[in-house]
This record gives sequence, structure tokens and C-alpha cells, in this order.
Amino acid sequence: MNLKIFIAQVNVVAGNPKANYERMSYAIKQACHENNGADVIVFPEMNLPGYLLGDMWERHSFLYECMHYEKKILDLSRQYPETLIAFGNVKTNLWDTQEDGRSKKHNCCVVVLNGEIVKTYVKTLQPNYREFDDNRHFYDFRKYLFDTLNSEGYQTYCDAIKTHYAPVEFKGHKLGFMLCEDGWENDYTFSPMEHISKKADLIFNISCSPFTRGKYKARNKAFNDLFDKYKVPIVYVNSVGIQNNGKNIYTFDGDSGLYNEGKFTSLGAPFQEFITELNFHDHKSKNLMHYDEIGMLKMSLIKGIRMFLEQSKIKKVVIGASGGIDSAVVASLFAEILPPKDIYLVNMPSKFNSDTTKDLAKQLADNIGCNYNIIPIQESVNQTVQQLEENGFIITDFVKENIQARDRSSRILAGVSASVGGVFTCNANKSEFTVGYTTLYGDLGGFLAPLADVWKTDVYKLAKYINNFKVKDIIPQGSIDVKASAELSDTQNVDKGQGDPIIYEYHDKLFYSWTERWNRWTPEDVLESLLRGDLEKDLGVENKIIETYFNGEVKLFIEDLERWWNLFDGFAYAKRIQSPPNITVSRRSYGFDLRETQIPPFYSQRYCELKNKII
Amino acid sequence: MNLKIFIAQVNVVAGNPKANYERMSYAIKQACHENNGADVIVFPEMNLPGYLLGDMWERHSFLYECMHYEKKILDLSRQYPETLIAFGNVKTNLWDTQEDGRSKKHNCCVVVLNGEIVKTYVKTLQPNYREFDDNRHFYDFRKYLFDTLNSEGYQTYCDAIKTHYAPVEFKGHKLGFMLCEDGWENDYTFSPMEHISKKADLIFNISCSPFTRGKYKARNKAFNDLFDKYKVPIVYVNSVGIQNNGKNIYTFDGDSGLYNEGKFTSLGAPFQEFITELNFHDHKSKNLMHYDEIGMLKMSLIKGIRMFLEQSKIKKVVIGASGGIDSAVVASLFAEILPPKDIYLVNMPSKFNSDTTKDLAKQLADNIGCNYNIIPIQESVNQTVQQLEENGFIITDFVKENIQARDRSSRILAGVSASVGGVFTCNANKSEFTVGYTTLYGDLGGFLAPLADVWKTDVYKLAKYINNFKVKDIIPQGSIDVKASAELSDTQNVDKGQGDPIIYEYHDKLFYSWTERWNRWTPEDVLESLLRGDLEKDLGVENKIIETYFNGEVKLFIEDLERWWNLFDGFAYAKRIQSPPNITVSRRSYGFDLRETQIPPFYSQRYCELKNKII
Repeated sequence: MNLKIFIAQVNVVAGNPKANYERMSYAIKQACHENNGADVIVFPEMNLPGYLLGDMWERHSFLYECMHYEKKILDLSRQYPETLIAFGNVKTNLWDTQEDGRSKKHNCCVVVLNGEIVKTYVKTLQPNYREFDDNRHFYDFRKYLFDTLNSEGYQTYCDAIKTHYAPVEFKGHKLGFMLCEDGWENDYTFSPMEHISKKADLIFNISCSPFTRGKYKARNKAFNDLFDKYKVPIVYVNSVGIQNNGKNIYTFDGDSGLYNEGKFTSLGAPFQEFITELNFHDHKSKNLMHYDEIGMLKMSLIKGIRMFLEQSKIKKVVIGASGGIDSAVVASLFAEILPPKDIYLVNMPSKFNSDTTKDLAKQLADNIGCNYNIIPIQESVNQTVQQLEENGFIITDFVKENIQARDRSSRILAGVSASVGGVFTCNANKSEFTVGYTTLYGDLGGFLAPLADVWKTDVYKLAKYINNFKVKDIIPQGSIDVKASAELSDTQNVDKGQGDPIIYEYHDKLFYSWTERWNRWTPEDVLESLLRGDLEKDLGVENKIIETYFNGEVKLFIEDLERWWNLFDGFAYAKRIQSPPNITVSRRSYGFDLRETQIPPFYSQRYCELKNKII
Repeated sequence: MNLKIFIAQVNVVAGNPKANYERMSYAIKQACHENNGADVIVFPEMNLPGYLLGDMWERHSFLYECMHYEKKILDLSRQYPETLIAFGNVKTNLWDTQEDGRSKKHNCCVVVLNGEIVKTYVKTLQPNYREFDDNRHFYDFRKYLFDTLNSEGYQTYCDAIKTHYAPVEFKGHKLGFMLCEDGWENDYTFSPMEHISKKADLIFNISCSPFTRGKYKARNKAFNDLFDKYKVPIVYVNSVGIQNNGKNIYTFDGDSGLYNEGKFTSLGAPFQEFITELNFHDHKSKNLMHYDEIGMLKMSLIKGIRMFLEQSKIKKVVIGASGGIDSAVVASLFAEILPPKDIYLVNMPSKFNSDTTKDLAKQLADNIGCNYNIIPIQESVNQTVQQLEENGFIITDFVKENIQARDRSSRILAGVSASVGGVFTCNANKSEFTVGYTTLYGDLGGFLAPLADVWKTDVYKLAKYINNFKVKDIIPQGSIDVKASAELSDTQNVDKGQGDPIIYEYHDKLFYSWTERWNRWTPEDVLESLLRGDLEKDLGVENKIIETYFNGEVKLFIEDLERWWNLFDGFAYAKRIQSPPNITVSRRSYGFDLRETQIPPFYSQRYCELKNKII
């Protein structure tokens, strides 16, 4: 191929067409500079408006803004009349409505040459799972086809397909274009690729695809399969940056590259912005395949936290440091992002906190070299209990536990962060989020919960990974070794090896089956698997579960199953409704990704039968 | 029509097919009882599974459960072999996948006779706006048609339409069926009604349609228009009860009835469960049209709160009583639901609270006859300030305001409610939610924010409405008359007429334009309207805005506009992410209904132009 093709893996700023236009403009000038002389420049999907924008798509002024900057791209393209520019934008027809009665909008790939639009591809396959709401916002090409069929008949319908998927002929080449999900055709009954590949000799898939642990494997399979089937090379063009829909902050890994001859060649580093020339033979950049999973996870967390702080103009962060593993990992992540002077660790002991953990908190602050305060809560907690008792309210030990947790976050951390003009973090992990092993307005408070999509067992892996890359440990070894504990009562004494009721090595896998399996399990599936004798294999637990964790008693196993299910499928969700946003890294994250409803825990009639059979 | 047709406006329990089966079974037995001898019984859409279930639809065990109870309905129908039963259920093909790779699911109307399924209608038009995510979960009939076309050709496609929409012929009549949105065809390019009406002499629209203020008017228009156009009477069958998707709790008003000859005749009281015989001439029940808007609003709030408490097994509620209007209205709503002994009003004065409001809080508790405690916070606030200052943190007056708010909710109310085994409420209204005029973990805390979807100006109307229906005022007149104020500082002294910075009579209308207009406004639209001279008319504000509220200075008007927009489209959303659920009553409610994203406030390039032009 004798075209000079440039791929722009740009950082997309959601909701800011002006900023994205400026980035595009810079990239175009670079690629068209005389030393480069680009024939073609390709940008990612929705790189002008951004993609995860909630119902911002309903605002006419925003749609006008996107049109305005598209026009500016057309103007700019006149300066480089020999260069074909393809980019992602929303196309709106403000005078025609879609099915919600609002302006009709399409997710498009716009191909431009010398001030004219050569071609506009409308996305055919639209995702409506996980964080995606495409059909809520956009009118896809299949709907357009269906309309054509009903208003103009079958022949026009067939012609429309041919026209729409025809490649752009340019300087002797035939370039096909498609948008993101169009390349993930496996579960659809219609294949855009079948039509696009008929005449094209190179196809661009422009995407806006967030990072998910392990997703690159699925993508490599899907796109290598496309090559196998249709025999046309595909260039994958994805953006970087962060976008969110409130509860879930997604990082975009880019990882753009070429699928050809059954293999993937990346064009540059993941998570990094670049504009680079496509070379069919000579790319050797490191891509996601070269990192281990915990390394990728850490990259995504750091990227997500850093950009979220920047976007929110947050410069100072306050972290409650208990001496445990979660707060230590959170602090060490922030230590890679902010200077130590802008990090405030606060240890807030009550009478239940051991010297062991207090020392570990101090050690962590020393390792980071940041601000450190010890602000005890016992006196305040005593006064609260006394004041409530004076008013005739009986305060049990359990109520006292939660009073401690709220005193720390809502009284101390919120006060400190307001005082320094910063924010405080929520250090809870995904295991805790799952069963609500947290206190509302207590340890569940904070501006961001960086670990809320990371299982506790992975928090430990992350801690070790973080220490491995440092000359000197950041996270005290003691925080990794100490028994995980809330230290809110006499029965949670770490020096006696007491602590959390969650058996992380087993429960993390069980909770995973309820949340992250594509077909999510309920207790019925757990019992089915148990009866098949497959439970350890299905969950991926090494030890024999009932023997190791339940004294060999199936009754205890079922009690435990119901205990956690009642929380997960019950009150824990009420807590998640009021929880802070997370950095979403898993296959399924609480919030907008996994949509829940506040109803009593679900037990099927079949579950009851199986339970009766087993006990 | 000589058929005895029974309409079952049942209460649907979301996620509980067993409970819904039992209700159905009771209704069927009633209608088929020898005194009644029903020929036909019709239930609402999705009345076996429920509808607003988030991603519960992904659980195989839940889908099996729905199939299991459908089978039990078939079994039951054998006892009444002369009665046709139509109901709503999800139909699943566990061995075929839809576009997310999961089991294929359809939202169906199932028509049953003597143990056999006579016909299954698949929903054709699926809503994907507001709280609805139909395309996320269900495969609609248009997709099925599209598949047919592509796999079997145009003729089969046409045949499929004819077959699918053919009526059920029964005892000499032709009964057509459709599902909810199928009847709201206005914005769609495909009309199910066009096909259904061809042969049917009566059509049932089974719905699962939540209450929204004013929606009944739109429905009456849509369905009367259908009659005008197709000349077939339509029976509208809707459910009652509550369903939620976390942040938003919807009430279902039922309001089932007959659309015939251009008018609507209701079959029974709205929000009430009933089974009744359809009579073409003789229904006179009160329906939504007979209530004024505030009356309907109150009905929905009471229904929503009551059923949410029941579902959550909550029996005691703690309410922070400030003496102001919001807490008074919240308390008076709970007073209609719970006995006084289970309501705890708590007044928590600091040095800034006036005797005026303290007395009003007491008076409210006396009017209700409930528990009342005065638990001052000044000492605790002082100690917090002192402790933070001792640690070197500077505490400004603004920081002190928020310390007070958090002390009240996170320390006192959370402690009291844990002690009595109850929950506490969030009393914030929609005006406050809009601009984040609330404190996180402070007055924004609580298990439920009953007024979070009610504008402050409507809270006043609600207060008057509530008092009107009582022999003796529940809400002290002083709470209605007093200046709305947070009383968190010297500058918010109600006795000097000082208080909130929000000018509710103007700002409520402005905020409405940003949230509830179908095409939602941004500052650009506000300035466009101002320049057209239409601002008062467009917003529905009686006074000349700039003259009345901004001293005639357009500069002040724009400063004010930007001040509130920066909050609404900025930090206020960060607060809403962590806010409690609300009872959704408006055309657009924060949460899952109005989906937002955490990005800096949006100002279009056109806005900047207009602003320069104006100033």
C-alpha cells in the first residue's frame, strides 16, 4: 500500500468539542507537515463530542456545538487538499425526530476531503449492555434501512445497503470504514463487515472503547476472526483519556493497531496519546498484550485517578490511614500522582485500634513523606453516645461501631479536607461493596473510591506489585501481613488474629460469580454446581470449599451463602446507591455498568427445592 | 359486545413472580366464579416478573422462575376452560442469544385458553428514554422482522407481519392485543396499531406505565387519536404498585379504562388494585382527570413512601425537624403512613437557630403527636473545630457551616435511627438538589428523599394542600410563612428575613427549563429567549425577570445564571451521585431518569457570542 496513513490515538475530552477540535487541528497539522505529507489521517469514534455523556445528547446547544466544530474541521481540510481526514462525530438532523420525539442523532464516521464531506458512515450495530446506552441516544443504520423498506420497498432497501457500505476510493485505494461495535458482529444477525469487505482493500474500525481487564484478548480474537473470514486487513483506532457516567469512571486504553494475517501489531503505547504513521511491517511497540494483568490494572487506576483529579481541578487529597492494606494501596496510588506535600494521611484511632496498625499507618506516611496527623475519635464517640443516651436512646455495641466509622469520615476527614481545600478518599474495595461491609457516611464516604472495582485478593496483588517496582517498599510489609480488620470492637483484635468475617480467597470468587460472569449466578446456580460436583472448578477455588471453610458441613456452607446473598442482593445495594464513583476496571462494575434495583433478595423456587434436597 | 371481560388492575411486585402468580390466581378465581363467569380476563404488561428490574433480567434463574409460574397459569386455566386469559411476561429462549450474547428475551403479551397458549404478542415499539432501557433487555418484534427479511426474504417478512398482528378469534369476537409503547406510535416510523386494527373489533393495550405529573393528559390524547384514526375501541390495562431502579422509585397509577368514541372512561380508582368487569356504558369511577395536580402529586408520594417502607420492612422513621417547610411536609407525609409512636422528630439547634424555628419544630411534633427530642449540636461542633484547629487545620466560617450539617445527620440522626431500629429521612427538595444547596453526609443523607423530585414552590403548595384536608393544621402556618433558611450562620437569620440565596419563584422555573423540558435548555437557550424578548413567557414567570430580581441590570442576571449553572452542571452532580433515592413524580428526575456525567459545566461557543452581544 503506497498511501501514507496516519493514526491519531488522541485523548478525547468528553463534552468539550472545542478542546477536541484543537487536538485534532494539532494532529492534522503535524501529519500534513511537509516532512510527513499524510495522505490519510484517521481519528477515533466520537472524538469530537466524546461518547459517555449521559443525557447531554439531548441538549440542542451541544449538538450545534458539535456541528460548529465539524465545520471548522472542513475549513481546515481545505489547507491540505490532498489529505483525506476521517473522524468520529454525532450527526444531527434537528428537523427530524427519533423515537423519543427528540432530534434524530447518529453516531458517525465522517470522511472529509478538501472542505467537502466525501462520505458519512452511520454506525450499524449499537451496544446496549454494560455502560452503553446507544439506542437511547442514536438512530442506527439498521433502523434507517427498516424505514427505507417500509416507505420505499425492498429494492431501495438493497440499494441503500450497497451505497452505504461502499468504500471511499482515494488515490487508487479502496478504504472501508466502520464504527467500534460494527466489528464485534458475533452476536448480531446482520454483518456490516460482510458488506464493507466486498470491495475495500483496507478497513478502519474507529472505536471509543474503554479499558476492561482482559478485554484486549476478546478483541484480538474478534478482529483476527474478521480477517480470517473476510481477508481484509483492519486498522483499529481507539482513543485514550477518561470518560464517566457518574458512578463509573472509565479509562480508555487506546491500544490502536493493525490486524493483518491473523496477528495484531500495535502502533504505540497503550493509554498514551500519539499520532503515528501506519507501517505494515515494522511496528514493535509495547501493547497491552505485553503487560501482566495486575500491571494493566495499576496503569488504568493511575490514569483514571490522575485525569479525574485534573478534570475536577483537585490538587489535595486526604486519606484515612488505618494501617490496613486498602488505605495503604490507595495512598501509594496517590503518591504516584501528587507531590507528598499535597497528601494528608490521617490516623483516627479509637480504643480498639492496636499499636500494630497505628505504627503501620505512621510507617506508610514516612515512606511517602507526606503530611501525617493522628486525630483520635474516642472522646467524640463517647460524647455522642452519652448525648444520645441522655435523650433516652439505647446505644448497643453494634451501633457504637457505626458511630466510630461515621465520626472518622463525616466529622474528621470531611472537616480536614474542607479545611485544606481538598477531598477525601473512600478506601473500600469491591468485596466490601458487594456485601455492604462498610458504613454509610462513614468509610463509604469520599469523593472517589479508587478500589471499589478491585477485589480484596487483587488489592493484595496490587500491593505487592507496587512494592516490587520501588527501590524501597512504599507499603509496609506489616500492612500486607496483618489480618484484615475494621478494628471497631473487641472482637476485631488484629493482635489476636481477629478481623473481617469475609474469607476473601473463597468469597471473592463467589461474589465474582454473582457480578462479573457474563451469565451472572444466583444461589440456585451455586447449588446446581455443588450438586454437579463442579463448584471448585466453576468458581476457580483451589481448596475443597466445604471441607476447608465450613468444617465439612454443607449446612454451614448454605447458611454462609444465604448470609452474604441477603446482603449483596439486599441492603448492600441501598448503600451502593449512595456510594462514591469508582475507577471501573472489571468486566462488571457497580453503578451504571451493573444496574440494580432495590428489592428483597431473590431466591427462586428451584433454589428452595435444591436446598431441601441437599440438607 | 356480549363478552364478559374482566380487567385486573393488579399490584405488581417487581422481581417476585411467585407473589404475582398468587395475585393472578386470586383474580382469575374471582372473575371466573359462577356469579361472574368471565369470558376474558386481561392483566397488565409484565405482571408476572415486574418491569423495572435493572440487570436482573440477566439472571437465568430469574428467567426460569418466570417460565415456571407461567406454566402454573396454564395449569390453572384448565380449571376454567371457557375463559381466555391474557397477561404480561418475559419470554425467553435460553438456547438462542440476543445482541449482548445473553439469552434472547421478549416483552410479551401471552394469551392462554384451557392450558394452551393461543397466541404470544411480542412488543414492537420499545422505549429507551427516561427510566426505560427496553433495548438493553428485550428483543423487539421489529428486530425479529428484520432478521426474517435478511434470512428468508421479503415475502416471509410480509407474512410475518400479518400473522403476528392477527387478532385472537374468540366466541365470535376478534380481540387484538398490544403492549404499552405500541400505542404511543407518534414518534415511530412503524405503526403496530395499523396492522392490529385491520381485523380486531376490540384492542387491549397492556401497560406497565409509571405515574408522572400530567402524563394522563398526553395518554388521553395519544389513545383518543388512535381511536380517531383506526376506529377500534382500546382498553388500557395498567398496573399499580411501586417499582424502582435504585435512585428513582416510581409509583404506578393504574388508571385503567376504555378509550372509545373520543373519550376515556375509567374502570376504577387510580393507584388502587381491583378486578372489575368492563362495561361499555356505565363506568363513572373517579380517575386521574378528576384530581388537581397537587392532589395527584400527594397521592403518588404517599403511595410511594408507604409501599417502599413496607417493601423494606421499615417501621420507624427519624426526621430532623428544623422548623422549616421541607421537614414539616416530610413529617406530615409520614404522619399519614405511620402511627405517631413510630415517628421521631429531632430538633438539633446550634447557636444560629432562632427561637422562631425551634418553636415551629415543637409545634409540628405536637400537631402530629409523635416523639420529639431536642439534641443540640453546638458543643460537639465546637469540639470538632477545636480538635481540627489543634491539629493545625484552619476552619473558616464556611467550613463550620458544613460541620454543623454533617454533625446533625451523620452523628445525631444516624445514631438515633440506628438506636431505634429505624431510618432517617433526607428532607431536601428538587431546587436544592439542582444546585447542590445541601451538604454531603449532612442534610443530603438519609434512606429516602421524598421531596427530591418536588420543586420548592410546589413544596409550599403541597403544605397548603395537606393542611386544607385536615380539621386542624398539621403544618404550622409559621413554617409556611417563615423565610426559607439553612440557619447555619449569622447571615441566615430568619428573624431578620434572611435566608436562602435561591429566588424560588424565578429559579424554580429556570431550573425546570434545564431539567424537565423535553428539549432541555442550557444558558445558550436562556440568552436566545432573552434576546427574542420571550424569557418570561418561555419560562412561565409572571414578573419581568431582570427588572424584578436583578435591579434592571442584565449583567447581574447573567452572573446569577452562570452561578447556578456552574453548580447544576458541575459540583451539584457530584453530590447527586451520592444522594438517596427519591419518589419520582416529575417529567424528569435526577438519577436513572436523567442520566448525567461528571464533567465541567458546558458553555457553548454560541453562548459566549450571545453573552458578548448582550453585555
